[in-house]
Amino acid sequence: MISVILAGGSGERFWPLSRESHPKQLLNIAGEKTLIQQTVERLLPLTPIDRIYIITNEQHAFQTLSQLAPYGFKPDHLIAEPVGRNTAPAVALAAELFQDQPDEIMAVFPADHVVSDPDAFHDTLLQAEDAAKENYLVTLGIKPTRPETGYGYILKGGDLENLANAFKVGQFTEKPDRATAEHFLKQRKFYWNCGIFAWKVSAIRQELQRHAPEVIEPLAGIEQHLQNAKGKFPYRVFDAKGKKIFGSLPSISIDYAVMEPSQNAAVVPTSMPWNDVGAWSALDDISKIDSEGNVLSKDVYQVDCTGTLVKADGRVIGAVGLKDMIVVDTPDALLICPKDRAQDVKQLVEELKNKKRPETKLHATVQKPWGSYTTLDEREGYLLKRIEVLPGESLSLQSHKHRVEHWLVVAGKAEVECDNKKMILKARESTVIPKGAKHRLANPGKKLLILIETQLGNILDENDIKRYTDLYGRA
Amino acid sequence: MISVILAGGSGERFWPLSRESHPKQLLNIAGEKTLIQQTVERLLPLTPIDRIYIITNEQHAFQTLSQLAPYGFKPDHLIAEPVGRNTAPAVALAAELFQDQPDEIMAVFPADHVVSDPDAFHDTLLQAEDAAKENYLVTLGIKPTRPETGYGYILKGGDLENLANAFKVGQFTEKPDRATAEHFLKQRKFYWNCGIFAWKVSAIRQELQRHAPEVIEPLAGIEQHLQNAKGKFPYRVFDAKGKKIFGSLPSISIDYAVMEPSQNAAVVPTSMPWNDVGAWSALDDISKIDSEGNVLSKDVYQVDCTGTLVKADGRVIGAVGLKDMIVVDTPDALLICPKDRAQDVKQLVEELKNKKRPETKLHATVQKPWGSYTTLDEREGYLLKRIEVLPGESLSLQSHKHRVEHWLVVAGKAEVECDNKKMILKARESTVIPKGAKHRLANPGKKLLILIETQLGNILDENDIKRYTDLYGRA
Repeated sequence: MISVILAGGSGERFWPLSRESHPKQLLNIAGEKTLIQQTVERLLPLTPIDRIYIITNEQHAFQTLSQLAPYGFKPDHLIAEPVGRNTAPAVALAAELFQDQPDEIMAVFPADHVVSDPDAFHDTLLQAEDAAKENYLVTLGIKPTRPETGYGYILKGGDLENLANAFKVGQFTEKPDRATAEHFLKQRKFYWNCGIFAWKVSAIRQELQRHAPEVIEPLAGIEQHLQNAKGKFPYRVFDAKGKKIFGSLPSISIDYAVMEPSQNAAVVPTSMPWNDVGAWSALDDISKIDSEGNVLSKDVYQVDCTGTLVKADGRVIGAVGLKDMIVVDTPDALLICPKDRAQDVKQLVEELKNKKRPETKLHATVQKPWGSYTTLDEREGYLLKRIEVLPGESLSLQSHKHRVEHWLVVAGKAEVECDNKKMILKARESTVIPKGAKHRLANPGKKLLILIETQLGNILDENDIKRYTDLYGRA
Repeated sequence: MISVILAGGSGERFWPLSRESHPKQLLNIAGEKTLIQQTVERLLPLTPIDRIYIITNEQHAFQTLSQLAPYGFKPDHLIAEPVGRNTAPAVALAAELFQDQPDEIMAVFPADHVVSDPDAFHDTLLQAEDAAKENYLVTLGIKPTRPETGYGYILKGGDLENLANAFKVGQFTEKPDRATAEHFLKQRKFYWNCGIFAWKVSAIRQELQRHAPEVIEPLAGIEQHLQNAKGKFPYRVFDAKGKKIFGSLPSISIDYAVMEPSQNAAVVPTSMPWNDVGAWSALDDISKIDSEGNVLSKDVYQVDCTGTLVKADGRVIGAVGLKDMIVVDTPDALLICPKDRAQDVKQLVEELKNKKRPETKLHATVQKPWGSYTTLDEREGYLLKRIEVLPGESLSLQSHKHRVEHWLVVAGKAEVECDNKKMILKARESTVIPKGAKHRLANPGKKLLILIETQLGNILDENDIKRYTDLYGRA
């Protein structure tokens, strides 16, 4: 079985923890591991790591690879989409790439859901694999536990020959009203559509060709437009032509494009505990709740709060008399919202985007292939950053037109190249990078390098950078 | 008339904007000016600045003087209490200090209330002065506008001869229940006790002697135990004996100690708009409210909020669907509380104090007589601060046992003395202060000096400081 993880989420509903540069699947909101790490761990007993592929947006490639490096995930098993086009084009792309293995079962998983019973998950997937071997397009159907109006429902149809726990798919109903959802729940013939699928490569290609030729036909021969990214992380990336082709595909879900019209769809019902973690309010179901219904981080102090989620991030938070509220604090942005309005965080983020607030794009700490930087202070004439460089990593050889940089090592060891001269700086040592000097910062040590950078000048702008050479193909 | 401003508030109810080191009267929560600045400005048309005195806690002396410097307030008109002992000992102290002017009218004002009609305030005070000249102990009575249960009420008694708008004081009722407050409101004979008084020095001394000898008798000859503080800000401070005497006084209010038992008390009723700014919810009455009842700072974005106060401080805040909430953000602490629980912020602060959270004492930016410092980042091995030194000011000559300091000037000009060598550092220049070196930082320029200090060492503690000489008497 080949596993394809679709990691296309933007995760606006988890702002301010999620940002454009840091969507939901990269967050550890449901345990110590991030959602994409949990997704990979859940698959490993069924699929070795070298049979796992990920399709994600190009801007998330480095972080995804860095989160999955501990599992031995291969960089060239990550395929970078230039733009998000919903699930049908992503599935079609994977199917095209595996077309030389037509009988292989390909399973598709969202990167950002929670399944808390791995054994039930594995049993269900093996049943789905059996049905896929019989040429069905198989979708997993989660047994509903409440009349949820935010999910899609699948009606169970007739039995399938030789398959104990797989059924024809009846109608799909997207987000029913409350009364309908209650009716579905009582009928016990409806299942939640969880976005997990299994099918033969040949079967999905055939059904895409039949029901959504506009999605799959432009992808004929697409492999020749995919190449390994330059530099240290050779994930798969489109060339200009490939980007144009992919970008021209319609944005459409695989459910709508194929599963609904197909005569060949099957559903494997399961009662495995599943959560799509669709909004902050979903954390109630997957977090450890105290006797008052609260989920409170360290550094949160409360008086008479109930049913409240408070996520702190270093600062002390005092909460008095809150009831069913969500408070999420980050170094540069804060959210306060009642639980029953959690879906409307999306609307807030739209407003912030309209106002061009940078807090929708980046975190105060910006992840880079070589480590991260954090803006600590900014006033007229200077900008102060903490720069952390991972062992063995290196920033690009670069220069700045408008600023002087003052570097002070506070932990670890730095190799500094400046206008062709190299030096080693240890903790407590500093140097100055003049305007226009070609310079590079690297960590030649085995421990994290932490450096305080003070940028000085009248124009202090991330775009004031000229890159000459770069380990990560960004020059 | 001599005006005495009692600035003893701890202002726990305004956490996290108020801290032990930064109580309510020093906050600008009711306009651009701080409450104590507004209090002084309100008095200036009646009392020249050199007839205004302030009694406040010693730890607030520098900040109070710095806020009042623009008005020409004299440092030796500030009397520093070693500990807070409520209003009776402070009033008795002032009365003792002015005992050589027995016929002088002394008026007493809280430092942290809001009066939004200065003309009405002046008219009322002149009436109070007239009554005080007749040897009455005069209290101002505010005409109630709502059945407030949080205030004390004064019953208006009989007329006083020759005084048009002053009456005998009937009974005092502290914080009545709702029904009683409504009854008082209807009766139109009850007034709010606002803590503003006027009396002859001789009159208050006599009544203190009669009704609270335990408060005034120990203060006989107290002036000889008051001296000017050493250094640049010669406010009045007790010597060790004086501290002991003052500290041994009972903690009691002047209302309870004198006004209630006195046969000589008068009330001057007024309908001037008055607010004791007792909790965050009080800001509704003194702030500019939008059409939805919200008071929102810059950098606050909201969806469907009503009746909500959000104070931001640099970070972006997203508020969705909040109703009658209070959100107060500061760089190191955050409060969320419904308006009808605003009084319970005090309880939260008690909890934080029990847990020894430093956020109850200091702000992230700590005010100093020479300027301020702000902690920007702190990890094992280093601590990063922004230090701001006012023109002409200077830190103490000091040394540290456990840390090296790296100084980088980012704005202004620094004079650095290090082991008897002096140098001038301009913006972009840096130096290192070795462990144990006797050093001093000063601003010899006319603009603000901003310096980035990186402390490096295994022990990084504010207490690792030895002071040799100091402009402000702290050595």
